[in-house]
Amino acid sequence: MTASSALLTDRYELTMLQAALRDGTADRRCVFEVFARRLAGGRRFGVLAGTGRLLEEIARFRFGDDELDFLREHAAVDDRTLAWLADYRFSGTITGYREGELYFPGSPVLVVEGTFAEAVILETLVLSILNFDSAVATAAARMSVAAGDRPLAEMGSRRAQERAAVAAARAAYIAGFGATSNLEAGRVWGIPTMGTAAHAWTLLHDSEEDAFRSQVAALGVGTTLLIDTYDIREGVATAIRVAGTDLGGVRIDSGDLPLVAADVRAQLDELGATDTRITVTSDLDEFAIAALAASPVDAYGVGTSLVTGSGTPTAGMVYKLVARQDAEGSWLGVAKASAQKASQGGRKSAFRVLRDGTASEELVVVSDGFEELDAAERHPDARALHTALFADGAPVDGHVGASGVRAAREHHARAIEELPVRALALSRSEPAIPTVYRDAE
Amino acid sequence: MTASSALLTDRYELTMLQAALRDGTADRRCVFEVFARRLAGGRRFGVLAGTGRLLEEIARFRFGDDELDFLREHAAVDDRTLAWLADYRFSGTITGYREGELYFPGSPVLVVEGTFAEAVILETLVLSILNFDSAVATAAARMSVAAGDRPLAEMGSRRAQERAAVAAARAAYIAGFGATSNLEAGRVWGIPTMGTAAHAWTLLHDSEEDAFRSQVAALGVGTTLLIDTYDIREGVATAIRVAGTDLGGVRIDSGDLPLVAADVRAQLDELGATDTRITVTSDLDEFAIAALAASPVDAYGVGTSLVTGSGTPTAGMVYKLVARQDAEGSWLGVAKASAQKASQGGRKSAFRVLRDGTASEELVVVSDGFEELDAAERHPDARALHTALFADGAPVDGHVGASGVRAAREHHARAIEELPVRALALSRSEPAIPTVYRDAE
Repeated sequence: MTASSALLTDRYELTMLQAALRDGTADRRCVFEVFARRLAGGRRFGVLAGTGRLLEEIARFRFGDDELDFLREHAAVDDRTLAWLADYRFSGTITGYREGELYFPGSPVLVVEGTFAEAVILETLVLSILNFDSAVATAAARMSVAAGDRPLAEMGSRRAQERAAVAAARAAYIAGFGATSNLEAGRVWGIPTMGTAAHAWTLLHDSEEDAFRSQVAALGVGTTLLIDTYDIREGVATAIRVAGTDLGGVRIDSGDLPLVAADVRAQLDELGATDTRITVTSDLDEFAIAALAASPVDAYGVGTSLVTGSGTPTAGMVYKLVARQDAEGSWLGVAKASAQKASQGGRKSAFRVLRDGTASEELVVVSDGFEELDAAERHPDARALHTALFADGAPVDGHVGASGVRAAREHHARAIEELPVRALALSRSEPAIPTVYRDAE
Repeated sequence: MTASSALLTDRYELTMLQAALRDGTADRRCVFEVFARRLAGGRRFGVLAGTGRLLEEIARFRFGDDELDFLREHAAVDDRTLAWLADYRFSGTITGYREGELYFPGSPVLVVEGTFAEAVILETLVLSILNFDSAVATAAARMSVAAGDRPLAEMGSRRAQERAAVAAARAAYIAGFGATSNLEAGRVWGIPTMGTAAHAWTLLHDSEEDAFRSQVAALGVGTTLLIDTYDIREGVATAIRVAGTDLGGVRIDSGDLPLVAADVRAQLDELGATDTRITVTSDLDEFAIAALAASPVDAYGVGTSLVTGSGTPTAGMVYKLVARQDAEGSWLGVAKASAQKASQGGRKSAFRVLRDGTASEELVVVSDGFEELDAAERHPDARALHTALFADGAPVDGHVGASGVRAAREHHARAIEELPVRALALSRSEPAIPTVYRDAE
């Protein structure tokens, strides 16, 4: 693995670059926009995530000797193009929605402006990061809604590619999860980590009692004991016998959870362990979490369904050229006309229109001619959604690192508060608010 | 990002380690096995992938200062455990199925033997890699079956997390794809790369004709022109006018593909471009590919459905303690008894039983007492599936790097030839061959 992100790129970006350097269009200034044509899976809103990771990777998008040697030998890139890549630094600007913000069909969540050459080669990296992270964040937000005030922990690392797992933990935290099992996510992004023991711990010992006794000796009675390796009722009895009624928690990882949780709660209460918490972790998704709302469950651990986007493993965002300069330097809106994939040309700005504090419309103001967009002034009930993300060769402060993650989590919590109640239902439906396009005056 | 893989790990592995170092069970020798309880998505076979990547990452599984500092400050790991981690090198053995091999429910695809301490902490990394890579490889194999002799290119990088995209390209190549768009997969794993131009290329230019002319000038008439930015019929006419009848290919990325492909082929033939190839790339999966079998299509490019496992984004493999030594050093088979998640204790060896060269049974020989398994001798019609993968502190030769990928691709092609014809249908069904457990005599 290289630390450079430069070859996390589809080959055709470089093929186009080479041809553009040759025909003189490489320096035409362009605007590329990232948006989703629709909300996959009948979702009522999407959650943008990955922006902070993307900004950091763009700063690492450098063609060093390893990358250039490979391209020279294997990808038929000519010398002129190699020389251009060797000096590559993105010198344009990136604006977009804040990380954690909600989006709807057509929301221009990222706007990349620069020369064709410098902007086109970022396409693959931009989409890889935003599509994965947003798919996970959107699923996480739905689970957070379903869980209400009960805490959620992300524990899906083993069901995602090993580096994707770290990104998934980050996206889940932004969208309301409280902790992750993934240690690297803790180290790199400052996310709280959690975890106590697996079934292997019990199986390693000569008895369940030995295993529980050892765990309590090592970690204290505040720990959580996994009680379903053999028989749940015996497991609970053993747990309280070993740890006493101050046992922090028990975890249930199998069975018909509403029934099992009720039985375990009753048994714990009978034994006097009324403060011992119940965590459930078996094959949960937002629907299973919602179905447990009336059960005596204190916390949820979610794995597979979270890191795979709960049926929608990619957000389906695209990176489209929407405006460019012509040979004379005049701006033109552009769009393809392909069946089912037509898009709206022209640079855009975006606003969340609020009525009494509740979101009512995603307003996208289109400026084909590319005049100054001061639409915010004309929309006093609207919150402007674009903010500066990358300028002067570096990420704008506040969006990257662990502090960027915290800011995104806080922003997400505010944004979701603005949604109308109907947006929070889990069933398949239309987007919660309409996207309305308006031409700039 | 760190180059170490050590923190790509669930926190509870280290919590268990700490408790095991304290109670003396850390040094008990253990056997952990990786298997899938079922074939997700009603698949008839699974394809194991990721083994080579895993062996390389295990060699990089080292706790350096960054990792240890984090654990000391944030994960409540005690000093004894930190000291143990600082010296960590996996000293056990790993055997398993060859990469590219097929698997069925219960197939013991990986067997990790070592002390509890050194083996348990690999769980998350093992599963992250094998679950993702195998999900993609399994989808890729189904697409390869559907495509028959027509070439397949992987182009899903933008629909997967950026590092997962590289792994996906690798897995697809092992399972029969011929090329990838992902440049890093070319650099690191030696996979052929491909790609010419996107819609942005056409939109950048003042006309489609300008764009085609420039592309042909830069890349030659053997290139592939994307002809659906505006009107497909005009696109084809322009392409042949610009490039002549020696044009290498055209690509169609939208529309009702069987109809469009037939129209484009007829138009190309009318224009005399009878050797110009047609590549289609719009939202393909194995079913869409199968539906195009009678259409005049020459090659397929597959994105989203491939890198998301075509509806099954994770293979659902688990890493289970199946045998361990007790305090006296005797081996015991162990298994949990949880509802719906019971597993088969005891160390296992595995054989693909063949009848006249066709696979008929996945034979899993269980050895609770852990005596020598010489089952191969007793099964002359069976191919032994386990091979040495990691020993003496390093990956066994032949499984890692670009040469390991080539070996896995070749092995996969041979293994799939052994399947009965019914295994190659795409509909949901039972596994193509039964898994039969037998106790060692």
